[in-house]
Amino acid sequence: MKLAEAATPALVLDRVRLRRNCERMLARCQSLGVRLRPHMKTLKSMDAARIAIDPDHGGIAVSTLQEADYFAARGIDDIQYAVCITPDKLDRAAEIAGRIARFGFFLDSVETARAVAAHPHADRFGVWIEIDSGDHRTGLSPDSSKLLEVAEIIAASPGRLAGVATHGGHSYGARNSASIAAIAEEERRAVVAAAERLRGAGLDVPGVSAGSTPTAVHSTSAEGLTELRPGVYMAGDLFQAAIGSHGWDDMAVSVLATVISHKPEQNQIVIDAGGLALSKDRSTAALQGGDLGYGLVVDIEGKPSLGRLVVGGVHQEHGEIRGDAPLPFERLPIGTKVRVLPNHVCMTAAAYDHSLVVDDGTDVVATWERVSGW
Amino acid sequence: MKLAEAATPALVLDRVRLRRNCERMLARCQSLGVRLRPHMKTLKSMDAARIAIDPDHGGIAVSTLQEADYFAARGIDDIQYAVCITPDKLDRAAEIAGRIARFGFFLDSVETARAVAAHPHADRFGVWIEIDSGDHRTGLSPDSSKLLEVAEIIAASPGRLAGVATHGGHSYGARNSASIAAIAEEERRAVVAAAERLRGAGLDVPGVSAGSTPTAVHSTSAEGLTELRPGVYMAGDLFQAAIGSHGWDDMAVSVLATVISHKPEQNQIVIDAGGLALSKDRSTAALQGGDLGYGLVVDIEGKPSLGRLVVGGVHQEHGEIRGDAPLPFERLPIGTKVRVLPNHVCMTAAAYDHSLVVDDGTDVVATWERVSGW
Repeated sequence: MKLAEAATPALVLDRVRLRRNCERMLARCQSLGVRLRPHMKTLKSMDAARIAIDPDHGGIAVSTLQEADYFAARGIDDIQYAVCITPDKLDRAAEIAGRIARFGFFLDSVETARAVAAHPHADRFGVWIEIDSGDHRTGLSPDSSKLLEVAEIIAASPGRLAGVATHGGHSYGARNSASIAAIAEEERRAVVAAAERLRGAGLDVPGVSAGSTPTAVHSTSAEGLTELRPGVYMAGDLFQAAIGSHGWDDMAVSVLATVISHKPEQNQIVIDAGGLALSKDRSTAALQGGDLGYGLVVDIEGKPSLGRLVVGGVHQEHGEIRGDAPLPFERLPIGTKVRVLPNHVCMTAAAYDHSLVVDDGTDVVATWERVSGW
Repeated sequence: MKLAEAATPALVLDRVRLRRNCERMLARCQSLGVRLRPHMKTLKSMDAARIAIDPDHGGIAVSTLQEADYFAARGIDDIQYAVCITPDKLDRAAEIAGRIARFGFFLDSVETARAVAAHPHADRFGVWIEIDSGDHRTGLSPDSSKLLEVAEIIAASPGRLAGVATHGGHSYGARNSASIAAIAEEERRAVVAAAERLRGAGLDVPGVSAGSTPTAVHSTSAEGLTELRPGVYMAGDLFQAAIGSHGWDDMAVSVLATVISHKPEQNQIVIDAGGLALSKDRSTAALQGGDLGYGLVVDIEGKPSLGRLVVGGVHQEHGEIRGDAPLPFERLPIGTKVRVLPNHVCMTAAAYDHSLVVDDGTDVVATWERVSGW
């Protein structure tokens, strides 16, 4: 099948770019002397995991237990659920953990640590204590009084202290490589300090996990870390390109859409990819260099031959291409297929249960499943 | 099962409220003397359709061919795909149309009309010419020179001119009942004018379809219309409540979530419902009376006993509850379940493949499937 024959909207994944992005990140980690644990939260696909996995590590990170279940069933035997677990999720976690060699999850509280320690299958769990390295989303400060308390509860339990982990997500707020590198260093220092503090108290801390795509790309040292855990680099998106995580020609995921209406009076072309097909993420709104609306429109080959065309508005199933200059109505008659590069690919990809795979062209060479939901 | 035992995040649907919302809209249409064609784009569920369908009409509207396929397979025999179709979608449309009594779709161009007329199964299609009544998304102006041309192409084809249809979506930009009522009147006048113009040219125009939830609620006349086609009223959401489409206690859909982390230093409570579970819709940002972030947090019973708690930030799987006043950490220990009322329920519900159904309580009385994708 050709992309021109595909039903729209559809998710398109360029395998050539995916491979290149994965090779680049693996080489980056190797040059830093740290192993790579790819975070599969974006593509959620076993086919993608096979390409992304570091042969010297073997493991992955996931963002939902549904992903963990999916990857465990397909032979991945080192899975880290990189979100704070809660007591009610432990039974399902134990079921998954019982099927693979190493299953870990995050936690950042005494309450959850106690529930883990008391679980009848605590011996199956690897616990990563989440450290807040400045993102202030979740995690304990490296100097928190609770850090030692949590670690000792786990160490005294049948469970295993897998290590300490952090996510320098505040790197998304930085706008140049120097400030991202500074955040990467904050991220590294915080999680290494937490590990050293626990080791100083006589605890074994085998894993020291950090990572976001921007910090993995711009960090200057991985000293003390055992693994980096980026994810979005595999697919790439407009936001990551804009903050310098990868080039503008590295984006591997786009949404195939069809022109459904012309509104010349409004200088507007409407496509069948709206808020559900693109997501309502607006992360490019605050970027220097210009707001990219709900995505940048390129041609069916993925090339920017149409000029700067942006999806300026969305309804549930309608995307409105608007522009200051007159739109190229003649180049985009009704029925024309285009591709839309997403602002935030993790949000966009989630609407689809499969990807149409191309190798730098418009032939669909494979269809890859992806897992959704929780 | 009780909601307290459900895996989170999960979509909760209160059937008592759904029924009440459906009864209210049906009574509203009856009082206006017009039939109701419920738009199933939000709940996408046969169980919900059974409650919503007007016994005097029998039909529904849908926003994707996937929904059309789903509902056709479950016995609905009058389905209107309320989006402009394109030539490449006609084969699938013909397959669906071949299974039911009446299948229609929108179009607004000469190009698509010609493709429809030339299709080998054109006789299966009911064509609704879309009219732009001021929303400027898609549709022909009632006085467009193309209106007659499109209608005549269909009338001369084996296909059937089902009628003219419009969506007064610009009502979403209004903020009081008087201005919504004025838009409802614009909507009605535009689509009725289009019908009259075609009838004046000797064409049969059986259907005159209009509707959005705000205009259906606030319209003062349905003269000349044959049906109203609202959708979001079934579920309701914060945005619709804020603009007066329904009461604050009419919202039938919420997201069940679990508290996963406390960040007292940031006065922040984190739940396991983030950008994917809630959507990134920010339609309440521009509302008078206050921005509701990514959703309003209520207790597990759906009651506003927690004060004004808002999800102020989201990451993929994390929702950050923030507030100016100190948050109720003691009432919301880690593991506590809450419900989040969504800004825009059509976006939020799309992330789930089923709903947990309650009858104004916390007992899960049913699980309803829902169809996603395209």
